[in-house]
Amino acid sequence: DFMHALDEVQAAFGVSEEELQSVVQNGIIHFSQRINDILNDGSLLVEQVRNSARTPLVCALLHGSSGSGKTALAATIALASEFPFIKLVSPESMVGFGEAQKIAQLHKIFSDSYKSPLSVIVVDSLERLLDWNPIGPRFSNSVLQALVVLFGKRPPKGRRLLILATTSNRSILRDMDVESAFDTDIPVSPISSIESIDHCLREVRLFNSDQEHNRAMQMLREAKFGESGRGELMVGVKKLLSMAEMARQDPDPAYKLVSSLVREVN
Amino acid sequence: DFMHALDEVQAAFGVSEEELQSVVQNGIIHFSQRINDILNDGSLLVEQVRNSARTPLVCALLHGSSGSGKTALAATIALASEFPFIKLVSPESMVGFGEAQKIAQLHKIFSDSYKSPLSVIVVDSLERLLDWNPIGPRFSNSVLQALVVLFGKRPPKGRRLLILATTSNRSILRDMDVESAFDTDIPVSPISSIESIDHCLREVRLFNSDQEHNRAMQMLREAKFGESGRGELMVGVKKLLSMAEMARQDPDPAYKLVSSLVREVN
Amino acid sequence: DFMHALDEVQAAFGVSEEELQSVVQNGIIHFSQRINDILNDGSLLVEQVRNSARTPLVCALLHGSSGSGKTALAATIALASEFPFIKLVSPESMVGFGEAQKIAQLHKIFSDSYKSPLSVIVVDSLERLLDWNPIGPRFSNSVLQALVVLFGKRPPKGRRLLILATTSNRSILRDMDVESAFDTDIPVSPISSIESIDHCLREVRLFNSDQEHNRAMQMLREAKFGESGRGELMVGVKKLLSMAEMARQDPDPAYKLVSSLVREVN
Amino acid sequence: DFMHALDEVQAAFGVSEEELQSVVQNGIIHFSQRINDILNDGSLLVEQVRNSARTPLVCALLHGSSGSGKTALAATIALASEFPFIKLVSPESMVGFGEAQKIAQLHKIFSDSYKSPLSVIVVDSLERLLDWNPIGPRFSNSVLQALVVLFGKRPPKGRRLLILATTSNRSILRDMDVESAFDTDIPVSPISSIESIDHCLREVRLFNSDQEHNRAMQMLREAKFGESGRGELMVGVKKLLSMAEMARQDPDPAYKLVSSLVREVN
Amino acid sequence: DFMHALDEVQAAFGVSEEELQSVVQNGIIHFSQRINDILNDGSLLVEQVRNSARTPLVCALLHGSSGSGKTALAATIALASEFPFIKLVSPESMVGFGEAQKIAQLHKIFSDSYKSPLSVIVVDSLERLLDWNPIGPRFSNSVLQALVVLFGKRPPKGRRLLILATTSNRSILRDMDVESAFDTDIPVSPISSIESIDHCLREVRLFNSDQEHNRAMQMLREAKFGESGRGELMVGVKKLLSMAEMARQDPDPAYKLVSSLVREVN
Amino acid sequence: DFMHALDEVQAAFGVSEEELQSVVQNGIIHFSQRINDILNDGSLLVEQVRNSARTPLVCALLHGSSGSGKTALAATIALASEFPFIKLVSPESMVGFGEAQKIAQLHKIFSDSYKSPLSVIVVDSLERLLDWNPIGPRFSNSVLQALVVLFGKRPPKGRRLLILATTSNRSILRDMDVESAFDTDIPVSPISSIESIDHCLREVRLFNSDQEHNRAMQMLREAKFGESGRGELMVGVKKLLSMAEMARQDPDPAYKLVSSLVREVN
Ligand SMILES: Nc1ncnc2c1ncn2[C@@H]1O[C@H](COP(=O)(O)OP(=O)(O)OP(=O)(O)O)[C@@H](O)[C@H]1O
Ligand SMILES: Nc1ncnc2c1ncn2[C@@H]1O[C@H](COP(=O)(O)OP(=O)(O)OP(=O)(O)O)[C@@H](O)[C@H]1O
Ligand SMILES: Nc1ncnc2c1ncn2[C@@H]1O[C@H](COP(=O)(O)OP(=O)(O)OP(=O)(O)O)[C@@H](O)[C@H]1O
Ligand SMILES: Nc1ncnc2c1ncn2[C@@H]1O[C@H](COP(=O)(O)OP(=O)(O)OP(=O)(O)O)[C@@H](O)[C@H]1O
Ligand SMILES: Nc1ncnc2c1ncn2[C@@H]1O[C@H](COP(=O)(O)OP(=O)(O)OP(=O)(O)O)[C@@H](O)[C@H]1O
Ligand SMILES: Nc1ncnc2c1ncn2[C@@H]1O[C@H](COP(=O)(O)OP(=O)(O)OP(=O)(O)O)[C@@H](O)[C@H]1O
Ligand SMILES: [Mg+2]
Ligand SMILES: [Mg+2]
Ligand SMILES: [Mg+2]
Ligand SMILES: [Mg+2]
Ligand SMILES: [Mg+2]
Ligand SMILES: [Mg+2]
Repeated sequence: DFMHALDEVQAAFGVSEEELQSVVQNGIIHFSQRINDILNDGSLLVEQVRNSARTPLVCALLHGSSGSGKTALAATIALASEFPFIKLVSPESMVGFGEAQKIAQLHKIFSDSYKSPLSVIVVDSLERLLDWNPIGPRFSNSVLQALVVLFGKRPPKGRRLLILATTSNRSILRDMDVESAFDTDIPVSPISSIESIDHCLREVRLFNSDQEHNRAMQMLREAKFGESGRGELMVGVKKLLSMAEMARQDPDPAYKLVSSLVREVN
Repeated sequence: DFMHALDEVQAAFGVSEEELQSVVQNGIIHFSQRINDILNDGSLLVEQVRNSARTPLVCALLHGSSGSGKTALAATIALASEFPFIKLVSPESMVGFGEAQKIAQLHKIFSDSYKSPLSVIVVDSLERLLDWNPIGPRFSNSVLQALVVLFGKRPPKGRRLLILATTSNRSILRDMDVESAFDTDIPVSPISSIESIDHCLREVRLFNSDQEHNRAMQMLREAKFGESGRGELMVGVKKLLSMAEMARQDPDPAYKLVSSLVREVN
Repeated sequence: DFMHALDEVQAAFGVSEEELQSVVQNGIIHFSQRINDILNDGSLLVEQVRNSARTPLVCALLHGSSGSGKTALAATIALASEFPFIKLVSPESMVGFGEAQKIAQLHKIFSDSYKSPLSVIVVDSLERLLDWNPIGPRFSNSVLQALVVLFGKRPPKGRRLLILATTSNRSILRDMDVESAFDTDIPVSPISSIESIDHCLREVRLFNSDQEHNRAMQMLREAKFGESGRGELMVGVKKLLSMAEMARQDPDPAYKLVSSLVREVN
Repeated sequence: DFMHALDEVQAAFGVSEEELQSVVQNGIIHFSQRINDILNDGSLLVEQVRNSARTPLVCALLHGSSGSGKTALAATIALASEFPFIKLVSPESMVGFGEAQKIAQLHKIFSDSYKSPLSVIVVDSLERLLDWNPIGPRFSNSVLQALVVLFGKRPPKGRRLLILATTSNRSILRDMDVESAFDTDIPVSPISSIESIDHCLREVRLFNSDQEHNRAMQMLREAKFGESGRGELMVGVKKLLSMAEMARQDPDPAYKLVSSLVREVN
Repeated sequence: DFMHALDEVQAAFGVSEEELQSVVQNGIIHFSQRINDILNDGSLLVEQVRNSARTPLVCALLHGSSGSGKTALAATIALASEFPFIKLVSPESMVGFGEAQKIAQLHKIFSDSYKSPLSVIVVDSLERLLDWNPIGPRFSNSVLQALVVLFGKRPPKGRRLLILATTSNRSILRDMDVESAFDTDIPVSPISSIESIDHCLREVRLFNSDQEHNRAMQMLREAKFGESGRGELMVGVKKLLSMAEMARQDPDPAYKLVSSLVREVN
Repeated sequence: DFMHALDEVQAAFGVSEEELQSVVQNGIIHFSQRINDILNDGSLLVEQVRNSARTPLVCALLHGSSGSGKTALAATIALASEFPFIKLVSPESMVGFGEAQKIAQLHKIFSDSYKSPLSVIVVDSLERLLDWNPIGPRFSNSVLQALVVLFGKRPPKGRRLLILATTSNRSILRDMDVESAFDTDIPVSPISSIESIDHCLREVRLFNSDQEHNRAMQMLREAKFGESGRGELMVGVKKLLSMAEMARQDPDPAYKLVSSLVREVN
């Protein structure tokens, strides 16, 4: 099925875009139905660009809290399109760039895409591309303006382009009055159920025995998230996986993991 | 009639201005009387510039919410004038330009127009040309000042110029105290009746059968926009057409379209 | 008489200053006594500069709402002086200039004037020269400072200079604490009586018949400006003349003109 | 006597400083005892610099409302010192200078002064040198800092320097916390009595007859400044002299002058 | 044991990083159990980077009040890792660098680290690297953005990197919404018990006799920190050691030290 | 004794630092015990740097109101150290320097000091070095950051450095959260007793006779500072000495001095 196909993209499809591969190298864990829905929505967008004559340009926004998996999901959708032009635009590749340099780079990438009949560009972490800082606030308005205009600029006749932008701070886009730049948006949620955690920890084989695993789950249930003053369970999959690795170094991984989760939540 | 003539402009009149053509390539749907009125107002302005000796310069502002069709309408009026000089000034063509570069470009376009006996310049999306951002607010005051002065600068003796500016944020012009730069203004409204939606969807042939179409209309009526807490129906024609194309990919386009509209309104 | 002489300046006096001519090309309509008073005040200033040994420098400010006729009146006074050096400094001639360039230009014009025994400089639209924007507010302080210092700098021995500055926003000069830079000021008022409108419309021959003209005046009287919630009649002569030209294109100019005026007032 | 000597400075003393001469070319009118006091204070400062071994540097501030005569008085004191180095630093000579250029100029003037055993520098109109604008407020902090440091920098051994700075806005110096840069200050007041006006108008011979002069004085007394809602009489000598010259052009100078004064006061 | 090993790092391990050595040259005094815990946490992070395949990048934040020993502790952990690449990034080495230069330097150091299989970078005193100033506030947003992106940028395949950042102002990181850049954090506390002071003073041999030492401790107890209006005892180890050296010059070191501590606390 | 030695430093010790000499050329008057205390504290700091192995860097702040004698006292302490490297860093020597130039200069001076085994640097008038202006406030954050880092940067092994910084505005350092950059601080108070004034005036021999001196003191006592609405006596020694020189020019020095003091206090 499609879901399966997506998961095998990484191995099966020989796209040269190394950066995109690298952001999904820890894979996608299907810890809840929502993950399937997101990938499905992504595949519909891919089809719209491929098929509709009236919308040669579609621009979608993946948004969700820090570490919820936006980058990995956007990259997975992009790779699964098998479009001839697939590109990741990320702040990591522009460290130390001035505003003009960043805009020139963005401009070039979009111009390159116009040469391919079908293209997908992942514009990762908008708030970092804009150098967003809530103190002030400070940010690069010129990078924002360039992005907004590029997001709305039709490719030349016969060219089609899917843009997948991500952000962990959608509200700044609303405050900047540029939400209308996106045709649609896809929310990405953090993990909020013990079942999803269970699923993830099994997948990464944190514990040596089922007994140990069950003990950890029992402790989690006893933490009574969301009850009597304790915060709701809410953790990005990226943070969860990082906690798991830290716990792995500890003599008592179960205890370490649960206490990290409790500390995180409060 | 004039309306008809306008619609055929695109095909019949061989103006070389490719950009103008491109922004109207999806055509104008006459979904309400207001569309005719706007095109009619536009043609009166064209005649004023052509005929009055005392007003060789007329500057009008088309304003309306995001996606309401301002750019397509301004371009249509401009193309219909059949003036020898027709030009679209848009943010898309100035991505990454600094302030000075933008002003130089604007200056050049206006200077070029002064060489033609009759000219029309569409200055599209003022708020983007100004890099407007409500946070701060930030914007390019120097581009604004250049525009305001150019909007009021008489062409040399014997030259006549119509300026059609568009914006989705007229209030910033008021706040900047530059509304007096425009001789007149033309409001462009979003779609706000089920009849207009009906008209549009028929035109783009979203549904395969009349039955399907009627089912969608029925669902829309049942959504009871504007009643019992649901927001008023209010959607730009651009967004509506984009929703229609997304819905087209869906197994159940009628349901998909209506739910998009409901989500948009709330 | 002097008034008459002023009106004929344009035709009779061969000053090469084309720009000055262009701003008065629609002529001065003597729609109220106030117009005569303004021109008279202007001629007194001209005489003061010509005659008084103690005040080789006089700087006056014409101020009034947008389109009230400041530029045309200042230009008329300047041209009527018949001084050997007459110059218009306007934002139109400095589009795209940076601050330093503007100041250099101003400096040059003033320096040039010092070479002539008698000079008059019209510095038009101070708020635009300063790039004034009430959001912020933003403006060029360095251009302001240069202007204020130039306005107060005595010409060298034996040289005399009249400066006529205009602005539609006198209050910003007060806020900037530079009102003391002007020796005197001349207020220019918008049209506020139906009689003045009557005078103007006759002069520009908007209507084909007296009957039509009278119908329009009747409609204006019925609009009852300033009564029962309707705003006071208040329109710049520039706007009025522009409305007249628009109305001229309309099948029913009288109705069109009156509705424009009503819309303007509210 | 000293007062007399001061008045004759201009004619008798051949200092080459043309600028200083030009700012006092309308002379000093001894319209009140306060004028003598100011000139006397000035001569004491001159003596202190000439004589005291412990204070080779003295920095004084002349402050008073706009047009009260600060520049003319400072220049008169400076010229009367007959020091070998006398220099006027004024905004007029620095139009269009950037901050760095201004500071370089200031630096050069002060350095030059250090080469003369006895020097006096008039630094005119501090608020203009700083490009002061109350909106913001905006001003050149770097020029201010340079001035403050130069005002406090001792000349090299054996050199002595008197600095006479003027400003019409002393409060900004207080707000900037740089008042301690001045060793002393001299207030300059506007004209506030009908007797002083009487004195001035006689000196400039505004009226052709004593009768006319007396009529004007009578009208002034009847204006009842400071009574029943009318503002206090308060006018700078510079403005009064300018009003007198305007009135001179008028058929009825007495009436014109008094109405100008009344308008000024309100 | 590990603690012991850490202490001997400085002497035993021949890392060439002179700067790191210099910041720990006064050694680590084990004045409380918390010091051991911090060093232990550090060693767990080192092991995680060395061992976990899923987390080739770990970024930790040491934070605590001024002078609490953050730099010395981070350097000690880094040196104890015996990783082939160990680097200290500190504001001292970038005095006078502009923003671009700082970012280039940071970029270079991180790029260098990517060439080593195992690296640790100590990024010392974030608030100083950012030129943080609470007035405004002012800071270098571009340096911050570069740091945040570098802190989250995975090293290339097969490379592993531990980042130890320090700050005495963690709250600004929260205000800037960049706390999610750190995988974990380690609080460093100031000295808050008389026992810890006792321990430190013995170690640095401030007093010549036990009697003298005891007298000082007695005076400290009598100061009754935290009681009846006197502030809580709270002093960074760095400040305490500096006070001890000042006291050493005094005829009565005990009295001098105690009065310094009392003054510090209030 | 030490005090005496300090006073003779200027004459006896051949340090080439002319600038330092110049700031103390009016000498130090021992008008109160506090002056001795300050010089004593200074000599203890000198000894700490010379002797303690653990604190090769000591940074002290002399702070007090304008003209209280900070610069002269810091220079006196520095000269008395007889360290091989003694340097005054003052705003006077950096007039017109840009931020980068200032920082380069500071950097150079500190680097130079690292070459001498024992150094003392007087960093005079921090608020002026920072171009501090309370309006805004405006200041050079980059100069501040450079200073703070340099103040905390240990000299290389075997080098020792004493930093004596002065400011008349300590509170801005607190507001900027950089007070922890100083190991200790020395308050410098203005003169606040008639006895101190008595001492100073005798030293500078203002009056020709004891009788005259006593009359002045009597008048001062009668001014009843601090009583019935009159401000407290509070005057910097620098201002007092300047007032004395002004009074010296007056026919009645006693009266002039007392009235200056009364004016100063209110
Ligand atoms: N279902 C999943 N969805 C997303 N990521 C997953 C999922 N399962 C596992 N992962 C892994 O979790 C990590 C998610 O990190 P990712 O960088 O994509 O998050 P993010 O939301 O972009 O974070 P940030 O807010 O920092 O940009 C990746 O390593 C990815 O391989
Ligand atoms: N009656 C109509 N008026 C305007 N546009 C129409 C109409 N009917 C169909 N269209 C199509 O709808 C789209 C309107 O988009 P257009 O870019 O002109 O909107 P806009 O208001 O300029 O949007 P934006 O606020 O993003 O600038 C165009 O593709 C146009 O071809
Ligand atoms: N009595 C009049 N006074 C001034 N202008 C008149 C008069 N009668 C006719 N006009 C015409 O009206 C127009 C006035 O426009 P003008 O540009 O001078 O106004 P303005 O106040 O300078 O406008 P703005 O505020 O835009 O600078 C000119 O075309 C002028 O020829
Ligand atoms: N007693 C007087 N004191 C000063 N100026 C006098 C006096 N009598 C006559 N004048 C004349 O009045 C004018 C005063 O102008 P001046 O430029 O000195 O005033 P100002 O206070 O410096 O003005 P501004 O505030 O604009 O700088 C000069 O022309 C001077 O010759
Ligand atoms: N237990 C300890 N922890 C840390 N430092 C210690 C300890 N014992 C002694 N020291 C010494 O105390 C000093 C701590 O200074 P350090 O510069 O590390 O503090 P800091 O918190 O980084 O200060 P700042 O806030 O100024 O950056 C060092 O000289 C170190 O050698
Ligand atoms: N006891 C004293 N302490 C300090 N200065 C003294 C003393 N006695 C006399 N003086 C003289 O008083 C003057 C003090 O001026 P100084 O410039 O040192 O003050 P300051 O506090 O640095 O002033 P500012 O706030 O303007 O920087 C010097 O000329 C110095 O010679
Ligand atoms: Mg991401
Ligand atoms: Mg548009
Ligand atoms: Mg005008
Ligand atoms: Mg002046
Ligand atoms: Mg540190
Ligand atoms: Mg000082």
